[in-house]
Amino acid sequence: MKIEKILVANRGEIAIRIMRSAREMGIATVAVFSEADRDALHVRYADEAVCIGPPPSAESYLHIGKVIDACVRTGAQAIHPGYGFLSENPAFARAVREAGLILIGPSPEAMEIMGNKLAAKAAALKYNIPMVPGTEEAVTDVAQAKSRAAEVGFPILIKAAAGGGGKGMRIVREVESFEEQMQLAVSEATTAFGDGSVFIERYVSSPRHIEIQVLGDSHGTIVHLFERECSVQRRHQKVVEEAPSSVLTPELREQMGRCAVDVARAVNYTGAGTVEFILDENLDFFFLEMNTRLQVEHPVTELITGIDLVKEQIRIAGGGMVSFSQEDLRIQGHAIELRVYAEDPANNFLPDIGTLQTYRRPGGNGVRVDDGFEQGMEIPIYYDPMIAKLITYGRSREEAINRMQRAIAEYDITGIQTTLAFGNFVMQHEAFRSGHFDTHFVEKYFRPELLQTQQEEEALIAALAAVSLLQRQKPAAALNAGTVTGNWERNRRRLR
Amino acid sequence: MKIEKILVANRGEIAIRIMRSAREMGIATVAVFSEADRDALHVRYADEAVCIGPPPSAESYLHIGKVIDACVRTGAQAIHPGYGFLSENPAFARAVREAGLILIGPSPEAMEIMGNKLAAKAAALKYNIPMVPGTEEAVTDVAQAKSRAAEVGFPILIKAAAGGGGKGMRIVREVESFEEQMQLAVSEATTAFGDGSVFIERYVSSPRHIEIQVLGDSHGTIVHLFERECSVQRRHQKVVEEAPSSVLTPELREQMGRCAVDVARAVNYTGAGTVEFILDENLDFFFLEMNTRLQVEHPVTELITGIDLVKEQIRIAGGGMVSFSQEDLRIQGHAIELRVYAEDPANNFLPDIGTLQTYRRPGGNGVRVDDGFEQGMEIPIYYDPMIAKLITYGRSREEAINRMQRAIAEYDITGIQTTLAFGNFVMQHEAFRSGHFDTHFVEKYFRPELLQTQQEEEALIAALAAVSLLQRQKPAAALNAGTVTGNWERNRRRLR
Repeated sequence: MKIEKILVANRGEIAIRIMRSAREMGIATVAVFSEADRDALHVRYADEAVCIGPPPSAESYLHIGKVIDACVRTGAQAIHPGYGFLSENPAFARAVREAGLILIGPSPEAMEIMGNKLAAKAAALKYNIPMVPGTEEAVTDVAQAKSRAAEVGFPILIKAAAGGGGKGMRIVREVESFEEQMQLAVSEATTAFGDGSVFIERYVSSPRHIEIQVLGDSHGTIVHLFERECSVQRRHQKVVEEAPSSVLTPELREQMGRCAVDVARAVNYTGAGTVEFILDENLDFFFLEMNTRLQVEHPVTELITGIDLVKEQIRIAGGGMVSFSQEDLRIQGHAIELRVYAEDPANNFLPDIGTLQTYRRPGGNGVRVDDGFEQGMEIPIYYDPMIAKLITYGRSREEAINRMQRAIAEYDITGIQTTLAFGNFVMQHEAFRSGHFDTHFVEKYFRPELLQTQQEEEALIAALAAVSLLQRQKPAAALNAGTVTGNWERNRRRLR
Repeated sequence: MKIEKILVANRGEIAIRIMRSAREMGIATVAVFSEADRDALHVRYADEAVCIGPPPSAESYLHIGKVIDACVRTGAQAIHPGYGFLSENPAFARAVREAGLILIGPSPEAMEIMGNKLAAKAAALKYNIPMVPGTEEAVTDVAQAKSRAAEVGFPILIKAAAGGGGKGMRIVREVESFEEQMQLAVSEATTAFGDGSVFIERYVSSPRHIEIQVLGDSHGTIVHLFERECSVQRRHQKVVEEAPSSVLTPELREQMGRCAVDVARAVNYTGAGTVEFILDENLDFFFLEMNTRLQVEHPVTELITGIDLVKEQIRIAGGGMVSFSQEDLRIQGHAIELRVYAEDPANNFLPDIGTLQTYRRPGGNGVRVDDGFEQGMEIPIYYDPMIAKLITYGRSREEAINRMQRAIAEYDITGIQTTLAFGNFVMQHEAFRSGHFDTHFVEKYFRPELLQTQQEEEALIAALAAVSLLQRQKPAAALNAGTVTGNWERNRRRLR
């Protein structure tokens, strides 16, 4: 069917990003917003907008009834949930279906399976997708665990079955210390969770986070759109992503792509989804999980393939087919995304909420900014503190990196701390430039002092440059041919 | 040699565009500026900036001595002239060479030949490049002219050898009226120019302007980067450009590409240049001229090839080679550029100078804006009134067109009239969408009233939409779930 009006059940950059594609398809859009977002850009961008209640999100963006009611009232036939909020909630997907509306996303059944770690693993195992070797079930018996550990090979990881947050987690490097470590882990787990059972799995000491974008339609097509490398993380959250990965060979890419398609096939997946893998130092990969929604970092895939993922989602939701075949798809160039968060890299990346006193976006060749703010706006405390996604594209990885540095230098934000300076730190770091990094990048290399030292160094360079400039300058020419120093440089000097 | 610092002898968007590429290559930049441009963005963007005098341009941007002096004083090794100003001036190219500096552009010899219509024609004839059939030399004898006209075939064009501005120009459709029209043309030319001699050439009634981008290096490589279609013009100046052209077959593209490479080879061309052709309704093409510089519309070529033309120019000027081979190059997708001028389409496209009271750029996937202004800035009266180049890229021509309409709707400029609404008129016109248009597009289809009618229509649609919205809205829900109308729509409603 032809979808003519879409309600976007989200806010900020992703709401605008979705509406842009809808508009290019001639589809009308409805925004929903909380009272805190009354002046937000996504509200202004939409053809219609409906206020669905106060913050926090439970009273508005997460309120299934209010979202569906807004859809019915405005006559929208379909709902795009974006990422986060209701996007992976099977109850929401069911409610949408029951209201006779279309969810632009997978079936509630697929969401349910992939939302449950054990069910997801079971589904993937049907297709022999590689998993991190270890115990399939929780164990408490030390001897049994030790023999399994020997099979799996050291180093191994012992983690509490009931656990979380690193409690009851132990890395064991040699068989000699296994028993002692296991006993400690069990006792820690018992104290913390009242349950001493643990899992044992191979410890991947230098893991890379590689994910594969897939698209499935209701006609049985499932294709993949290559990988995204998302290993640069802070607080276990992605902050720099790129496509393609600099370590995948064409053979490995095809193999991982086929596995991702199989995982999607295991749940008759429709729409856009992402299969996440962990890749170890031997380039062995293991299934992690599947995200049943559009990812934050989807633009890097769009740039290297030329495919508009949101348009594909909408087409598929309307009963259409994926608009290309696997064979037609080629990787063109290289794309990098930096998430620009309102947070302070010098202070453990804690959110730094406030007003965007200055806000100037970078531009020009190969630079894409997806954002939801304007100068003078406030970053609300209620929601994720992401200001923008800064994405650069180049013929080569090196060009994309250099372009990112240029774009970061142009990005002018004052009033709050952001991850821009941190992004620049990553771009100029030898480990990142050479492609030799893993998910420990931040803990291994980043120290807040490094940003400061850099600032000081840059100030020194700037001061020296100013002196040499003065020396060159003829006094008589001061008015008519005077040399002035730019303002835009401020950022660059600080960051380069 | 490694160029470490470049002076950009230009202003506005193209100065910033050049500096962006330089910065991505780790090259420092020097801006020059007139007193009227003291607060201009290109001045702020550069690492250093030198004031070179007052407007008009003859006292600053066109002043060879001042530009070279600024280069010497700041220690820049190379000068990029952009387009316009000194970019095609052989005297400037010679002065740069004599000062021991590098011009990022072709040799003065190549500029000289291509700057002279007869010399350019002679150079191209060596390689058998097709020319519009006609008399090679001016004629006055009617009988001789008539026999040549019969050979060329009707309709033919009679134009004064000494002419310009359409004076003494006649279109003759059949042989019967030739003698009478020729006599009129000769007498008109004699009166106007004191010289009655005329040229006779085939009249191309439905011409398309197709140009081929070339790159040559000092190692003898010359390649082409496919075509740009620039047929949508107002006042004989391009306003909408695209790549690829919707009428070229792969064979014709290759043939025209080879001809363009030959034209460049005829003058040992180095750097970026453009060979312009006229294409008639039978898809026969004829050499028009060669522009020995970067063109305004170069971004559409960058988007479909992935090649950064400014980086290639800089690399070549430093003695390097073109970074790719002809065989490696592929057309990927489709790109369209709209020149956003400060001029009033409803008033004969006359410049409409003033202050940018509101200035918000469009963004998101596939949208590139190259500009040199910010909100609150004034468009100076001294220079070309181009505010920005809005370029969209898509997988298909249709996607690029739809994206352009979406981007135009997002572009928020108040305080002056611009070509944005005209651009939207072009994008939605059946002749443009179907690809059936020629250089007469504007005179054939455009009437200022069409823009106004459209505005009125849109206002009506908006009013109706508002009414239906009110009807849907429950009174009790007004505060908590009220439906509001966006501000960003203003443009879109007006323009769509």
